[in-house]
Amino acid sequence: MNGKKNNMQTARAKLPRGFADRARGEIAATEKMLGLIKTTYELYGFEAVETPLIEFTEALGKFLPDQDRPNEGVFSFKDIAGDLSQQRDRSDENWLSLRYDLTAPLARYVAENFDKLPKPYRSFRAGYVFRNEKPGPGRFRQFMQFDADTVGSASVAADAEMCMMAADTLERLGIKRGDYVIKVNNRKVLDGLMEGIGLGGDENAGRRVTVLRAIDKYDRLGEEGVRALLGEGRKDESGDFTKGAGLDEAQIEWIFIASMRKHPPQGYRFTDQLLATRPIDDMEPLNPFDWDEVRSVPLIDNLGTITFWKTKFAGFFNEGLAELEAIIGLCEAAGYGSKRILIDPSVVRGLEYYTGPVFEAELTFEVPGEDGKPVRFGSVGGGGRYDGLVGRFRGENVPATGFSIGVSRLYSALKAINSPIVAAHTQRGPVVVLVLDKDQLARYQGFAAELRRAGIKAELYLGASGMNAQLKYADKRGSICAVIQGSNERNHQDGPQVTIRDLVLGAALAASTKDRADYLERRANDQVTVREDQLVTSVREVLARHGATSEP
Amino acid sequence: MNGKKNNMQTARAKLPRGFADRARGEIAATEKMLGLIKTTYELYGFEAVETPLIEFTEALGKFLPDQDRPNEGVFSFKDIAGDLSQQRDRSDENWLSLRYDLTAPLARYVAENFDKLPKPYRSFRAGYVFRNEKPGPGRFRQFMQFDADTVGSASVAADAEMCMMAADTLERLGIKRGDYVIKVNNRKVLDGLMEGIGLGGDENAGRRVTVLRAIDKYDRLGEEGVRALLGEGRKDESGDFTKGAGLDEAQIEWIFIASMRKHPPQGYRFTDQLLATRPIDDMEPLNPFDWDEVRSVPLIDNLGTITFWKTKFAGFFNEGLAELEAIIGLCEAAGYGSKRILIDPSVVRGLEYYTGPVFEAELTFEVPGEDGKPVRFGSVGGGGRYDGLVGRFRGENVPATGFSIGVSRLYSALKAINSPIVAAHTQRGPVVVLVLDKDQLARYQGFAAELRRAGIKAELYLGASGMNAQLKYADKRGSICAVIQGSNERNHQDGPQVTIRDLVLGAALAASTKDRADYLERRANDQVTVREDQLVTSVREVLARHGATSEP
Repeated sequence: MNGKKNNMQTARAKLPRGFADRARGEIAATEKMLGLIKTTYELYGFEAVETPLIEFTEALGKFLPDQDRPNEGVFSFKDIAGDLSQQRDRSDENWLSLRYDLTAPLARYVAENFDKLPKPYRSFRAGYVFRNEKPGPGRFRQFMQFDADTVGSASVAADAEMCMMAADTLERLGIKRGDYVIKVNNRKVLDGLMEGIGLGGDENAGRRVTVLRAIDKYDRLGEEGVRALLGEGRKDESGDFTKGAGLDEAQIEWIFIASMRKHPPQGYRFTDQLLATRPIDDMEPLNPFDWDEVRSVPLIDNLGTITFWKTKFAGFFNEGLAELEAIIGLCEAAGYGSKRILIDPSVVRGLEYYTGPVFEAELTFEVPGEDGKPVRFGSVGGGGRYDGLVGRFRGENVPATGFSIGVSRLYSALKAINSPIVAAHTQRGPVVVLVLDKDQLARYQGFAAELRRAGIKAELYLGASGMNAQLKYADKRGSICAVIQGSNERNHQDGPQVTIRDLVLGAALAASTKDRADYLERRANDQVTVREDQLVTSVREVLARHGATSEP
Repeated sequence: MNGKKNNMQTARAKLPRGFADRARGEIAATEKMLGLIKTTYELYGFEAVETPLIEFTEALGKFLPDQDRPNEGVFSFKDIAGDLSQQRDRSDENWLSLRYDLTAPLARYVAENFDKLPKPYRSFRAGYVFRNEKPGPGRFRQFMQFDADTVGSASVAADAEMCMMAADTLERLGIKRGDYVIKVNNRKVLDGLMEGIGLGGDENAGRRVTVLRAIDKYDRLGEEGVRALLGEGRKDESGDFTKGAGLDEAQIEWIFIASMRKHPPQGYRFTDQLLATRPIDDMEPLNPFDWDEVRSVPLIDNLGTITFWKTKFAGFFNEGLAELEAIIGLCEAAGYGSKRILIDPSVVRGLEYYTGPVFEAELTFEVPGEDGKPVRFGSVGGGGRYDGLVGRFRGENVPATGFSIGVSRLYSALKAINSPIVAAHTQRGPVVVLVLDKDQLARYQGFAAELRRAGIKAELYLGASGMNAQLKYADKRGSICAVIQGSNERNHQDGPQVTIRDLVLGAALAASTKDRADYLERRANDQVTVREDQLVTSVREVLARHGATSEP
């Protein structure tokens, strides 16, 4: 049948952009990673729960960054089949979406099962999520996340636990201490600042989100890009224009100062301008800044950052700062200092649903960037507190906090550092039983079955090629040895025999021998001919020679 | 924050019909199942490969049963985001679909990577697939399959291997021999029959598919339903009309006879009518049937079925019968007889892409049906040869055969027989560290961290309730013990102490004690107070008392 032309229209064998296949090495490494993450989460008392990949669009809500137009960011479709079999009583119910993260579906799950779940409810889940965004290099539209969430606890101890568990997880995955940092911030700190510069109140909710998303893009767009998004807006390379938050210059400077992205020029004083925009009368007046002092604040010291904020932004940040202090206090008491869990005022997380502490797990080692120059590996996960998300379904807020690992991204990181988790899975192929005489198929198949019964991976050659091609096939499969039986062996005077050829040794011999005569002489070393009933024993010997074992 | 009302519109916390959440028991059992299936497939030399959940609609093709109208059966959407960043050169390229099985994406993968893959190429993959069909009881729109495929082998040995591997897999999953059967048939047998009754040629391709799908629905619709679908058509309960294959009465009878669904009334002879419809002149004339002989053919005997077909349908089925004989021969030589791998003429598989042997794994034990009466559990997987599917991308046929396990369905089966795979995962909850004094949070957290470092699952209570509610929470979590420290223990004259309360024993005592005095007296038995540095040792003792161990 092979080779027969058909007259079907030829379809193109390709994937849509932003989607990728995974081969056995990545699959095995990912399984190993998921197992290690799961073990860590379980040690902290979290338990598995899983939701489907599709939800009502309404249940997911619209919390994605870059999702300024309807249907942007998520894959959605009308539920025609579902409609046929159920009574609809809401006009928007028949839109379905692929989940864009694992948090929104968890909120739906908790709300749906609220009364029967223990509270606080700690759970974890791994799964694919989808973003209907412009694909690009390293930007996938399907990727895997592994989330842990605690729902029903308003305590900062729950947030501190997320940070410590994230650190433990990275270390269990073989990321060395010093090669990662869990960065913490608090949305309330920025909320305080925004209120201070005149962006408080419901009427400014949209602008506040725009500000947060702009800050979150600093790593990608740099200062000028963020400045444009905080101001009038920004045109990207493709010509698309994104409307900005419409802040004036002074407000923009304050955002930069508070998130410590930028220290202003010496002698520059914003205080008066800022005070002019402050709508709240009962705040302490701001002290003018001593910018040399600002510059001296070490960004790698939690107490320094807290002291700086307390001194210079007194009155703005009270609630947010107190929470951050408590989180850091709990972490430090447990031995997780600034080198592992660090306040970083620039962390905001782009998702709209966060309401308090936000986290980001960053790998600090460098890898070659697109232009070959070393760059910091960067974020492999993040999360935060989202007290309103479950509440969307219940009409009252339910406190919740969570952390999400970008599994695909973390896999890239482990590959970059040659992690044993990735390297360990250059697995050997199965033993290949050659088929030399078609009429002996059942006999050959019996050899493979016998090996399998002994726990040895084995396969029958199923192609149509001759002996040399079959041996090449076994090499391509990474097989350690091949089982061969021609008529000579089968009709041997002492009874049927089989030849076990050591392909690893054979390849080494072929590489090192001088000429054909020498090769044939040494041939005897890489294969052995034994009685059929010695098959398993002999194969085991060859496997053991190369450090491979049969399975239990 | 908890309890605070917000003024957001309340969304409904529910899933679309046909989708389901999975709790920890099912997740753990599924993981165990996937591991066992994988081990079996790997023993046969298959290796992992994974494709994304989304493909170009064009790449998936339209092979689904019930997919008579465009977009029916599959979830599809226009690729707007992808279009923005790529040059399109085909008008239909921008439709994307969720995969409806794992076979069509594998065909795309093999075609895309044809030159670098070893051939024959044996691979496996587990994953969710989606059907945009009417949901109903037990009919899900997202479910998991675990497939194995051999691409590039036209040999019936590849088909025989699929059958044997399916049998091995079920046994490894604990399905006893005799409780399952792998049913085999060959599409070519039915193709021969259809040619014989005048349904040959390209112009009848559509009708042939309709016939196959009709036969495939026998279990669900019964004889009358299938008869309607073979004839003019059928109206279902909801009033939807499905057009039939338009066969006349004699043709329908032949279909029933050949698939042995029904033996015709005594004395009834179709031969002349059938011959009148046969367009092919060079076939042997059919012998009239001796219906007593037909009835005597045991349906549980491969040789009997083959002999029956050979005698009574000589000339129709040559190629298909020869393949079936060879498959059965290989299976029997390997010790897989009629009780495990059985020719069943009624197996057709509804998917259009099958071209040769087809398989179905059926569990034969009975479970209570919807009406409480015992019914056969039925199919948990199937597959077959699909020589044209990879060829859609290459313009030439590439032989391929595969087998797919319905993981979700098999999980139900294992639950029905109380399999240890399902039962083993009623896992114990973590040790709960109570929080009695809020200002000692860091200290309590330290206890939990210490237990985790010793490999013991432990959590800090993160809610806002008092001691009794915290103990109830621990019970709800299935915890074996709780760690308690009040000010008395902390300020003990011999240094800080902790109390370990055995909740399992406590529950047993509470159930058996007569009154409160007795209860308090026996209380001493279910808890122990020790020095803080004895925490891990004491917790281990309590865990060991109930058969739980800490992890490595």
